[in-house]
Amino acid sequence: NSKLKIFSLNSNKELAEQIAEQVGLPLGKSSVTHFSDGEIQINIEESIRGCDVFIVQSTSQPVNENLMELLIMIDAVKRASARTVNVVIPYYGYARQDRKARSREPITAKLVANLLETAGATRVVVLDLHAPQIQGFFDILIDHLVAVPLLSDHFLNDPNIDLENAIIVSPDHGGVTRARKMADRLKAPIAIIDKRRPRPNVAEVMNIVGNVEGKTAIIIDDIIDTAGTISIAASALIESGAKEVYACCTHPVLSGPAVQRIQDSVIKELVVTNSIALADEKKIDKIKQLTVAPLLAETIIRVHEQKSVSTLFD
Amino acid sequence: NSKLKIFSLNSNKELAEQIAEQVGLPLGKSSVTHFSDGEIQINIEESIRGCDVFIVQSTSQPVNENLMELLIMIDAVKRASARTVNVVIPYYGYARQDRKARSREPITAKLVANLLETAGATRVVVLDLHAPQIQGFFDILIDHLVAVPLLSDHFLNDPNIDLENAIIVSPDHGGVTRARKMADRLKAPIAIIDKRRPRPNVAEVMNIVGNVEGKTAIIIDDIIDTAGTISIAASALIESGAKEVYACCTHPVLSGPAVQRIQDSVIKELVVTNSIALADEKKIDKIKQLTVAPLLAETIIRVHEQKSVSTLFD
Ligand SMILES: Nc1ncnc2c1ncn2[C@@H]1O[C@H](COP(=O)(O)O)[C@@H](O)[C@H]1O
Ligand SMILES: Nc1ncnc2c1ncn2[C@@H]1O[C@H](COP(=O)(O)O)[C@@H](O)[C@H]1O
Repeated sequence: NSKLKIFSLNSNKELAEQIAEQVGLPLGKSSVTHFSDGEIQINIEESIRGCDVFIVQSTSQPVNENLMELLIMIDAVKRASARTVNVVIPYYGYARQDRKARSREPITAKLVANLLETAGATRVVVLDLHAPQIQGFFDILIDHLVAVPLLSDHFLNDPNIDLENAIIVSPDHGGVTRARKMADRLKAPIAIIDKRRPRPNVAEVMNIVGNVEGKTAIIIDDIIDTAGTISIAASALIESGAKEVYACCTHPVLSGPAVQRIQDSVIKELVVTNSIALADEKKIDKIKQLTVAPLLAETIIRVHEQKSVSTLFD
Repeated sequence: NSKLKIFSLNSNKELAEQIAEQVGLPLGKSSVTHFSDGEIQINIEESIRGCDVFIVQSTSQPVNENLMELLIMIDAVKRASARTVNVVIPYYGYARQDRKARSREPITAKLVANLLETAGATRVVVLDLHAPQIQGFFDILIDHLVAVPLLSDHFLNDPNIDLENAIIVSPDHGGVTRARKMADRLKAPIAIIDKRRPRPNVAEVMNIVGNVEGKTAIIIDDIIDTAGTISIAASALIESGAKEVYACCTHPVLSGPAVQRIQDSVIKELVVTNSIALADEKKIDKIKQLTVAPLLAETIIRVHEQKSVSTLFD
């Protein structure tokens, strides 16, 4: 039986350490530094010949640095004669560039899939891809994990939440399946925010499909980036009679004005995962971060032991 | 006959503009911006269907940004139905990571070749690769240009240089072929700097093979990065009796303390090309930058018209 080794790169060291601890192994020894001209220098400092190697790296900001680190590490691991090269990408960057929305655009989510494969990855483990179709961009093996159970359990166990009165809200039509899954777990109804722009260059109108009057609304999304939509949606829910608004998402991209907007919004609490590490200035009281380490650790063990991972989603 | 289109990315816009002017075409219209989270957004703003497209981009600092820009642009150009996707990479970054110097190192120069190919490049045009073997890393077409004629002509036409007394110096054994070619053009002898480290952690000794007494020494290298070697080599040449020392290289990486070291060194003038754009603070009097635009423009025209480029090297 091959040995299991887990390596961390720079995007999300704390999560990688938690995963290794859960698996019961020390992180593999490697160094990732930069030459004076900014080129990445990677060295793996222990033998991995014949091993099942797992590399943990989110392609979060700085996305191009983190992606190149990952590609170069994959190359190094492959050339060091690992048996399998598994990449654990809790947050898969460039996922929103998954189609040509306009003429002559790239499809970067597909490009990245091809790059990972070309570098030598033999399997990827991802969490809540922006579109499930991105799974089909890979010709290598892919395990697609979901955070709905983790996020749902948090609200199920939070004594402050009036579960009898909860309603799960999808911030757009694309997210209804996810909201439906959470609603099943919380035994709650759903509502959908139906954004539309009456004319070009006129602010969007947030129309709420479903009755939120007197309810505890919980908005669920996959990515919160600049937090524009979610903070406006929260206000619209309150205006429509919701008693209070919580929000949750898998991937806290939180770029630009996001944290300030969350702070200033009517949202009581935003629950996120650590698929993306939060810089210290983003760690505000209103944002609660749950760890996906147990989920990823269990997945790594099962993949290594060739056991089914599908029960992790139930 | 297919139409020719030339696009620039962000690493070296001035060179790209010069190339387009020499070819007699406007640069293709495209926009390269960043989303709020740092992801690159590219849009090509004119039809390129059926065209021979040339994309000009050096993978110089910030190397990972520039490389990702290039890969995403290649993807966009390919998907926009270009007939051929030609990438002109005046400076090919990661070229020094071209072999496993230690165990378990990546071979990033090969990885990058594969990434370009995977993204959809059908041909690359490069200038003075750090090792000519890197040509073999590509399965797609490659044209490998050299800057020795350009650099040699500069010294041949400089009235301050005493050509009768010139000697061409290779700063290491790897560069002797390049120095030999320049020496042929200048009808000058060569000398070689034979670095060796007597014991670990002891400074290198610069031993000069060849007689430089009373000579105008011209050091030629492919890359000058931190300028440590070249400034020490220049001092060693003066100590060995050289009358004066000039230096030249194709790729002015000039990272970290490089510019200050050049400034403080005994080098009278450093002649470089614009394969890498120089930031304003690197534009000092001692550094003279020659343009490779005519060479690259002529190459692009010949490739497009399917004419031989080999005479460009004579
Ligand atoms: N990093 C990004 N930040 C913001 N918008 C993006 C990003 N990447 C892609 N997009 C755009 O987001 C749209 C896809 O998002 P969605 O409609 O939510 O699937 C596309 O039109 C993209 O042009
Ligand atoms: N960007 C870089 N800056 C400095 N050294 C590098 C860089 N990339 C690779 N190297 C090292 O340079 C050596 C190759 O340079 P050379 O011997 O001149 O071909 C290898 O040992 C590399 O580890």
